[in-house]
Amino acid sequence: MAATRDLAAYIVSARSESIPADVKHEAHRALLNYVGCAVGGAREPAADIAIRALAPYSGAPTAQVLARPERFDPLHASLMNGISSHVHDYDDTTPKNYIHPSSPVASALFAYASTQPVTGDDFLLAFVLGFEAESRVGNAVYPAHYDAGWHITGTAGVFGAAAAIGKLLGLQQQHMIWAIGLAATQAAGLREMFGSMGKAFHPGRSAQSGYLAALLARDGFTSGEYGIEGPRGFAPVQSRTFDLSKVTDRIGTHFDLRENTYKPFPCGIVIHPTIDACIQISRARPIKPKDIAHVRLRVAPLVLDLCNKKDIKVGLEGKFSVFHAAAIGLVRGRGGLREFTDETVNDADVKAVRNCVQATADPSVAEDAVHVEVELTNGERIVKQVDHAIGNLGRPMTDSELEEKFRDQATLVLPAKQVDELIGLCWKTAELTDVRQLIARAVPIA
Amino acid sequence: MAATRDLAAYIVSARSESIPADVKHEAHRALLNYVGCAVGGAREPAADIAIRALAPYSGAPTAQVLARPERFDPLHASLMNGISSHVHDYDDTTPKNYIHPSSPVASALFAYASTQPVTGDDFLLAFVLGFEAESRVGNAVYPAHYDAGWHITGTAGVFGAAAAIGKLLGLQQQHMIWAIGLAATQAAGLREMFGSMGKAFHPGRSAQSGYLAALLARDGFTSGEYGIEGPRGFAPVQSRTFDLSKVTDRIGTHFDLRENTYKPFPCGIVIHPTIDACIQISRARPIKPKDIAHVRLRVAPLVLDLCNKKDIKVGLEGKFSVFHAAAIGLVRGRGGLREFTDETVNDADVKAVRNCVQATADPSVAEDAVHVEVELTNGERIVKQVDHAIGNLGRPMTDSELEEKFRDQATLVLPAKQVDELIGLCWKTAELTDVRQLIARAVPIA
Repeated sequence: MAATRDLAAYIVSARSESIPADVKHEAHRALLNYVGCAVGGAREPAADIAIRALAPYSGAPTAQVLARPERFDPLHASLMNGISSHVHDYDDTTPKNYIHPSSPVASALFAYASTQPVTGDDFLLAFVLGFEAESRVGNAVYPAHYDAGWHITGTAGVFGAAAAIGKLLGLQQQHMIWAIGLAATQAAGLREMFGSMGKAFHPGRSAQSGYLAALLARDGFTSGEYGIEGPRGFAPVQSRTFDLSKVTDRIGTHFDLRENTYKPFPCGIVIHPTIDACIQISRARPIKPKDIAHVRLRVAPLVLDLCNKKDIKVGLEGKFSVFHAAAIGLVRGRGGLREFTDETVNDADVKAVRNCVQATADPSVAEDAVHVEVELTNGERIVKQVDHAIGNLGRPMTDSELEEKFRDQATLVLPAKQVDELIGLCWKTAELTDVRQLIARAVPIA
Repeated sequence: MAATRDLAAYIVSARSESIPADVKHEAHRALLNYVGCAVGGAREPAADIAIRALAPYSGAPTAQVLARPERFDPLHASLMNGISSHVHDYDDTTPKNYIHPSSPVASALFAYASTQPVTGDDFLLAFVLGFEAESRVGNAVYPAHYDAGWHITGTAGVFGAAAAIGKLLGLQQQHMIWAIGLAATQAAGLREMFGSMGKAFHPGRSAQSGYLAALLARDGFTSGEYGIEGPRGFAPVQSRTFDLSKVTDRIGTHFDLRENTYKPFPCGIVIHPTIDACIQISRARPIKPKDIAHVRLRVAPLVLDLCNKKDIKVGLEGKFSVFHAAAIGLVRGRGGLREFTDETVNDADVKAVRNCVQATADPSVAEDAVHVEVELTNGERIVKQVDHAIGNLGRPMTDSELEEKFRDQATLVLPAKQVDELIGLCWKTAELTDVRQLIARAVPIA
């Protein structure tokens, strides 16, 4: 019966100096990816609706919503940041527990840091600690918890936000225990919401609820002492099986942040190898669409179970079409947000190539692999085999690939020059004397 | 796969004329009891702390918190109302599912109605519908859900608040389905919080989250369509076994409100029969404390398992002492909030009688029964047998007993004359042209 207390003790005592340099670098990568997602999603309907619906209820507008002109109180800003950063399903993933970890934590932290001076060093430490708290609580209940139908980003996320905000508030151990307890008792989010705006609501509400938990705990609002492990606490109630040792095992030396991954393409993960391979073909040697006669894919059978639709009309369908995946890789040499719009799906060149694609299910092909053969009208054949798609732990996106992704997202909302400045600031988060220097650059300048 | 849709359809279509008169009367009783609890709990530390912690985050102060001078936005006011109305554990209970049903629903409704004109008739209808939605969703998952460790007042409560506020917002079916879905995905609250302020947080957060769900849904924020019954919806995820037919079985003709109960004494339910019997003895014929030689109780064995402490020093201990229960019944002839203060526990007369009490566990005594024998110093014996304690469904509190309870609670915070006016207004809720007439009387006049 010590998971909650031991986790609280670690969060309270951890110092920036004790976070290894490579973990700090990964934290910068995660933050860069997060900010790109938040900016890129800031004008989506889910964000617009939430802002319109809740603006009349916001407190004093002390907090900045990333990439929006509106200002809200920091609790509402946390919610909005969470919605926009997850709405494209383009944020990061810890593969071992399927959490999208940065959104709940960073959404609360950026809201907090927009209201008052926070040094980059403190911000980064709080982010690392929130990330670890969330991922470790998730590890303790994964996979039974996720399999039961919980959207683990929502449930584990609230712990991360509470830990991160609690750290910046300077909570001592007893208050941190209460913050974790008040987080536990708000842990929610059902996978039944997948396919609706409710999914993006989860990290937002987690950020907001975790922030709230920390505020209440600071002022002495008590919770049970065993929020995670008690017989009617989070783990026993929300998971058929669990391993509480994972909450604090090797804490402070092992960091889950090292095992974070970034999604290179905003679409179903099973078609990532195809996009990856076709981009590689296209970049090695540009091919004119009219020169393509046939594209033959050999894919894992699951790909055709999930993404076998060729006759598509809207962007969302493109996210689940392996034919569209091949076409955009070959025609555009990229697979960003603009490649999954209604416009691109109906583009004549993309459509023409899509119609040339044939896909064969091959049980010998792994789910993160693909074999692509492009036959040109002159009879020439170009072959590309991808064994591990970009973005996997074994083949992580490089820093410059993350920057490229960021540009693709952020230029939807911000001018290119501002986007480059923002990228530079994200890489330098730890050095900032005030994180508002970064946040100010993430807002459209009127 | 129709529970969510059918429930939404009923809530959307229900009219005041279709609610039977006896159900409306019970709704008035529930509201009277609710308002008494909210007023009586308004100055408790949990309420003070939450108000202090969250005041800086409140939106425009358009909403009244019951029995407090502060005004907040209606979402925060919902939270505060929920905390104060549950903090004494003195609110109502539907015995068949252990929900404390009025707090989540009425806390949101009073917050809403404090911001704009709402007729009493509309208010009462929304309350009845919210109550039914909450209790029926609870029935579908009770008892497995509660046994697993969920505080069902928190989890089911959010459905009630969403339904009630959705009704006042005039949501049509699709939007009501989304409101229910967004409620489902926020359903939370762990029994691990029992014994801490976190317990009272649950109905408050449910009220607030349900209100939020309705606001988002109104503006078109979508959720899954099967929030309750979908394979990863509320019932399958949060309960090992469930019966979805209970969500809408006989809806519109059968009302769970008819099976609501009110707690006569703010203490552990197993000592209610003892208080009840001793009050009856005292009221039949007042006895001076110094004339009491012995008090002999025969109680169900569970009573001594839970409430066997005689040497007590603080009010909270008194709530779980069968000896104190007998003493206050005999000495004070009542068992209200004032009988469980530190002061009363240490009162010389109460203490003297408490020390005369002996209790014997008797397996032949039912849990809602007691046998009391008072032996006076002159040798005379007074015997009282209670078979069913007051407050049970089989022996409900009368309207005037509810009024007496209300006075006991509300006079802690409001002047007696105002309390009587407020009682009168609660009974006339359905006739009010604007519920603010009632709410204004529930606030201390500066």
